[in-house]
Amino acid sequence: MSEGLSRLPTSGDVKAAARRIHDHVGRTPVLQNEALNERAGANLFLKCENLQLTGSFKIRGATNRLLQIPQDQRAAGVVAFSSGNHAQGVARAARVLNMPALIVMPSDAPRVKVEGVEADGAEIRLYDRNSESREEIAAQEAAARGAVLVPSFDDPFIIAGQGSVGVELGEQMRAAGQQLDHIICCAGGGGLITGLALGYSAFDADTKIWTAEPEQHDDWRRSLASGAPVSNAPGTRSICDAILTPSPGELTWALGKGRLTGGCAVDDDQIRDAMRQAFRHLKLVVEPGGAAALACALHDLPAEARGKNVGIVLSGGNVDPAQFAGIISA
Amino acid sequence: MSEGLSRLPTSGDVKAAARRIHDHVGRTPVLQNEALNERAGANLFLKCENLQLTGSFKIRGATNRLLQIPQDQRAAGVVAFSSGNHAQGVARAARVLNMPALIVMPSDAPRVKVEGVEADGAEIRLYDRNSESREEIAAQEAAARGAVLVPSFDDPFIIAGQGSVGVELGEQMRAAGQQLDHIICCAGGGGLITGLALGYSAFDADTKIWTAEPEQHDDWRRSLASGAPVSNAPGTRSICDAILTPSPGELTWALGKGRLTGGCAVDDDQIRDAMRQAFRHLKLVVEPGGAAALACALHDLPAEARGKNVGIVLSGGNVDPAQFAGIISA
Repeated sequence: MSEGLSRLPTSGDVKAAARRIHDHVGRTPVLQNEALNERAGANLFLKCENLQLTGSFKIRGATNRLLQIPQDQRAAGVVAFSSGNHAQGVARAARVLNMPALIVMPSDAPRVKVEGVEADGAEIRLYDRNSESREEIAAQEAAARGAVLVPSFDDPFIIAGQGSVGVELGEQMRAAGQQLDHIICCAGGGGLITGLALGYSAFDADTKIWTAEPEQHDDWRRSLASGAPVSNAPGTRSICDAILTPSPGELTWALGKGRLTGGCAVDDDQIRDAMRQAFRHLKLVVEPGGAAALACALHDLPAEARGKNVGIVLSGGNVDPAQFAGIISA
Repeated sequence: MSEGLSRLPTSGDVKAAARRIHDHVGRTPVLQNEALNERAGANLFLKCENLQLTGSFKIRGATNRLLQIPQDQRAAGVVAFSSGNHAQGVARAARVLNMPALIVMPSDAPRVKVEGVEADGAEIRLYDRNSESREEIAAQEAAARGAVLVPSFDDPFIIAGQGSVGVELGEQMRAAGQQLDHIICCAGGGGLITGLALGYSAFDADTKIWTAEPEQHDDWRRSLASGAPVSNAPGTRSICDAILTPSPGELTWALGKGRLTGGCAVDDDQIRDAMRQAFRHLKLVVEPGGAAALACALHDLPAEARGKNVGIVLSGGNVDPAQFAGIISA
């Protein structure tokens, strides 16, 4: 369909992706906050990808992936499946590159994410999580259209694109004359955290990178602890809709196993607490999955990170008003 | 009490203030958003002072003012009166400079603002808006302590400090290779907007600067239209607690009358709409007064600003959770 990397992405691929997508994505700020530092017991540097175009980092990987599609194949468009943030990233990248897009979304996706996709003019096919397979629907639709199927994480260009967050963070820390001893980043499929590990390694190869997950959905933590990829029990729930993936991906595990130090995990109440703290102290809207890394810093900080400089990725801010209102006023 | 400027502050004073407070305040990002541009009919550049330390720009002026107090007078401390944002700015600056602070606050101040002051260790004296004079209380307390009374806007160092927002914005626009045709900024006492006008004028003397106010509290708009300072009718209400000042200040009017182009005004529902738009599209928490400029861009944009580059100051984000929850879920 398009020329692809036939190997795992490298730090150089991530740097190239950062350059390639530079004009299409925002450069998000890094914030610090004393009150949160005190609560965490560490110096937090918060990389605000909730302020990214489309409200999450997903625009980065989507843009890098779509830019690989040769001009003469773009008219056939792209197909993606996603609960929402990847959906919006692909829809926006497709609109910017003037390509049609079909997004397969669960019927219970947050309304704000469905509306975001609609606003970018993508076609939406809703499916029922319990009775339909999104993979099958997407594969059929892509075949019927001759469109490119854009995976949400297990793709070298998606990983490299998400990793541009790490390049930016490295540049911003260097400009501030600071270094990160640790980084905590949410992990669903693992495209963001493995790309970030690659991208940041060019700035400091000694920085330790930790996954952040919901407690019942800690496949990365357990995989890293055991040295082999494991899956979550089927049917586990969490409010972190954006990062609920059954297990590490094939590529992301191959990248992550030697590069990620270990995992942290938090329950839904700790996620809600982090969202409230971000509201109060940062004046930021962070969605549940996007708050996982902050929640881990506040409630499950690795012992060796105490008192250190810790990068935290706030990965998204797409949360329905009613849910957010309920959480902050609890 | 301290050496003071015996003249109106200049663009040079603002630049000096920006340098002086540089290490004590944050450099806030400038965001852009396509959805908001479409709604406004202009290219908005949103200067996010809600992300500033203490959740508003007020830390800038407070820091610049407190740094004027000679070392040997600092032990006696400072006194300020404020509904909240200036209170927090003074409390934080005092703590950082190791000075005691007493803040006189109305008993109905937003809880989040009282807590912010408390968190910085300042003493709080609550007063009743209807039966007590905050000016008298503050003057008495300052005299009794030999402390410096720190006014909230009508002071050359306060104005110069707030104006550092304009210097930063100018630097950021220049770095982005962009220019602002217009700037819309909230106006209460007018310290921020007049300082900003001074600070930004060094980058582009032709940029037109517009005040943003609640409709029933449009003293700046009417003053600028008539050429003489006028007051609001007593007892007018608005949800914009941070910017309810009876009339332009003496210094701020002297600075503003020749530098500000005119005024915009919006009602409380339009303020709430702007807060909802900031939540949804920017993932930012903005308080009512802090959303006034955005509300004016969305609902009362000057005709000549249509299609132009318009700077918008989001001046603060200190809003109680219950109020914010009610507004976004309406």
